[in-house]
Amino acid sequence: MLATVVTQKADELVRLFYDTFLQDKEASSFLSHSVVHSRLSHSLRDWLLNLLRADTSEEKSRFEDRQRAIGEVHARIKIPIHLVLEGAALVKGAVARHLMQLDLSREVLGEALMQLGRRIDYSMQLMSQAYVSGSMRRAQLDESFRLFALGQDITLERESQRAALMEWSQAVLFALFGSGSATGLKPISSSPFGLWLYHRAGVMFQDAPALESIEGAMEQIDRVLLPKIDEARATQDPSLTGLVEDLQGLVEQIKFLLADLFQSAAGFENGRDPLTRTLNRRFLPSILSREISIASKNRTPFTVLMIDVDHFKQINDRWGHSAGDAILRQIAEIVLDTVRLSDFVFRYGGEEFLIALIETDAEQGFQIAERMRQALLGRELRLSDDTKISVTISIGLATYEGHPDYAYLVDAADRALYRSKEAGRNRTTVASG
Amino acid sequence: MLATVVTQKADELVRLFYDTFLQDKEASSFLSHSVVHSRLSHSLRDWLLNLLRADTSEEKSRFEDRQRAIGEVHARIKIPIHLVLEGAALVKGAVARHLMQLDLSREVLGEALMQLGRRIDYSMQLMSQAYVSGSMRRAQLDESFRLFALGQDITLERESQRAALMEWSQAVLFALFGSGSATGLKPISSSPFGLWLYHRAGVMFQDAPALESIEGAMEQIDRVLLPKIDEARATQDPSLTGLVEDLQGLVEQIKFLLADLFQSAAGFENGRDPLTRTLNRRFLPSILSREISIASKNRTPFTVLMIDVDHFKQINDRWGHSAGDAILRQIAEIVLDTVRLSDFVFRYGGEEFLIALIETDAEQGFQIAERMRQALLGRELRLSDDTKISVTISIGLATYEGHPDYAYLVDAADRALYRSKEAGRNRTTVASG
Repeated sequence: MLATVVTQKADELVRLFYDTFLQDKEASSFLSHSVVHSRLSHSLRDWLLNLLRADTSEEKSRFEDRQRAIGEVHARIKIPIHLVLEGAALVKGAVARHLMQLDLSREVLGEALMQLGRRIDYSMQLMSQAYVSGSMRRAQLDESFRLFALGQDITLERESQRAALMEWSQAVLFALFGSGSATGLKPISSSPFGLWLYHRAGVMFQDAPALESIEGAMEQIDRVLLPKIDEARATQDPSLTGLVEDLQGLVEQIKFLLADLFQSAAGFENGRDPLTRTLNRRFLPSILSREISIASKNRTPFTVLMIDVDHFKQINDRWGHSAGDAILRQIAEIVLDTVRLSDFVFRYGGEEFLIALIETDAEQGFQIAERMRQALLGRELRLSDDTKISVTISIGLATYEGHPDYAYLVDAADRALYRSKEAGRNRTTVASG
Repeated sequence: MLATVVTQKADELVRLFYDTFLQDKEASSFLSHSVVHSRLSHSLRDWLLNLLRADTSEEKSRFEDRQRAIGEVHARIKIPIHLVLEGAALVKGAVARHLMQLDLSREVLGEALMQLGRRIDYSMQLMSQAYVSGSMRRAQLDESFRLFALGQDITLERESQRAALMEWSQAVLFALFGSGSATGLKPISSSPFGLWLYHRAGVMFQDAPALESIEGAMEQIDRVLLPKIDEARATQDPSLTGLVEDLQGLVEQIKFLLADLFQSAAGFENGRDPLTRTLNRRFLPSILSREISIASKNRTPFTVLMIDVDHFKQINDRWGHSAGDAILRQIAEIVLDTVRLSDFVFRYGGEEFLIALIETDAEQGFQIAERMRQALLGRELRLSDDTKISVTISIGLATYEGHPDYAYLVDAADRALYRSKEAGRNRTTVASG
């Protein structure tokens, strides 16, 4: 009877699905094209008709494969997962309303509603699983390609693209002041520079703000300035000189932004903090999750230290930022000298370091922490003007105890550090389990 | 009334949830630890109690934030999404069974079941969306870290680790033949080499088969060989010599596998096919998805060519594989000379190339394809022994027409190529829309 309703109402459900989604801005961008519409309508109808038909085990395994295949396609075409789940909920609601209008007993109605939910939910489980693994594989590949694109000789790339930009603007100027031939001015967006910017720079520099500014300037040139210049030229309007100056201004601006773009990439791609040579904090999730998995799998201990320089603000205020930098650099050296090569040292915040001590339990970790703290007690750090000052550090220690979330471990170390500060600084506190 | 059932049965639902999941092998690995159990039981109970309580808009937005936060935690601790959806379905089923046992009218029962489904489904939509974006961000970071780790001076790393391995085996041998002191033999797994292998090599070389083999050999040493050697030494058993020879064999094997590991990384990390200098096929999904998004957003044309060398098998059979390689290299040169720098040329298969022509419509694409095909007609390719042979290519062309799945475009080009072959080779066929 549930199957009858779904079969009878299949066309209506497909229509409802598309009508609802075409009103959603995000969803409609995936569905608006006619190719998609006709193909997906067809797929959706098939999906509905097959939803309740998996009774034999052969049918069941075919049904499962099909749901996974759909999830993979969704990942490939980047349909957001919540839209798919929303669509499934929509279908459930509509079928349920139809069921409630039938003259069914309480029991039959209840069973039908539950069966409907189970089937659709099971399909969503399979689809989502395939979707997530497909999307993660894609994210990995995208990143790999981005870094590959960046890894090509970046200085050469910068100079080539600067040259391509100049070549385009020169061609425009020649066309303007030359024979004044009938050929229009070539837009920057379809010049080699424009193609590079849209198709390569987007990969290399992802969401860099300078990228958007360049695109804005290019649009300004192609949509506003070039048509005006073309017209002024045709009518021999005296405004031409001013317009060409505007063009020059925009080209200069693009040149400047381009330098900025390459500059920022050079800094960001470095996995280490340039000042202290410790690891960039953005690798923290990757490394800690991995180490927690290893600790959990191999039943090896794993300890995290959070280190903060005491009274760092006063140092900065009294001796200036370059003094602060010198202090941080020397503390990082001491830390790196104390740990083993296989441990991980991160610059965690302004004056904070996080250290991941692999295969190290709380007691060993405490000894390492104390060795760092005491190394500072016996030493004066040198500022750039040869002033020497003494500095202390506070340390919080937390050991992995089975919680799978690395954030939990970092929080525990952070709270222990806070207790070291509260208790008067220059000490190591071990987090209470 | 639905709220009453959920509230009254909350503890039972939490228990049911955990009991079911602890029987599932995959799920139990996330839930077995007592910290997790107590914390997650608590969270799950809260989630249930809050599920039906989002009536005011303030409550609603707090509810939504909470669902997203849960999704983020799940991504961080890598709970597979299908387990969460399965758990939600479990809760729905249990609450529905309770509802059906109550003395409710058909209408009230139906409405309650629908409301239950809507609330839980909405929670799943929000959670899954946050989960997917968190997981993709993580996959991206993991890859970025992996390539960073690989990008460090890899030759230096190889030599350091070879040295670390030798240092360990030397220490074992000294301990054996030296004073015969009471200290036991140090296991390889906790030596600097072992730590590097478990904590760094796993990142750098991911699923390389050599990695697993090394781990196997290390386990063999630590669990089997070292205890036996220790015993033989203590009892002055004559088997000692043979055991030490076994150890030497295993160390040699690890040394060999280690070289293999670094070797394979050098090849794989190269984004280009070493023979033809065209792009590695693994970047195809990243590049084509991106280009399809750009074409769709900017309404610019985008064309794909699939190229296959005619009768390539015969060339290989008659002149050998190095002749085939020479042919492929020269064809790749012609292809790369014909396209613009901003286009993408991939080695797609043995003798197949895929070319992504950006901002190019079918007509322009056809001209480019024909230019390649004709460039080969007027030229003899040179084999390494100076034999000259003529080669032709068949081409299939497909243009983006709005379908968001890049696989659809690749398939269309592939089918067009097949038609070129069928029609007698040495020609370009345009896919019919």
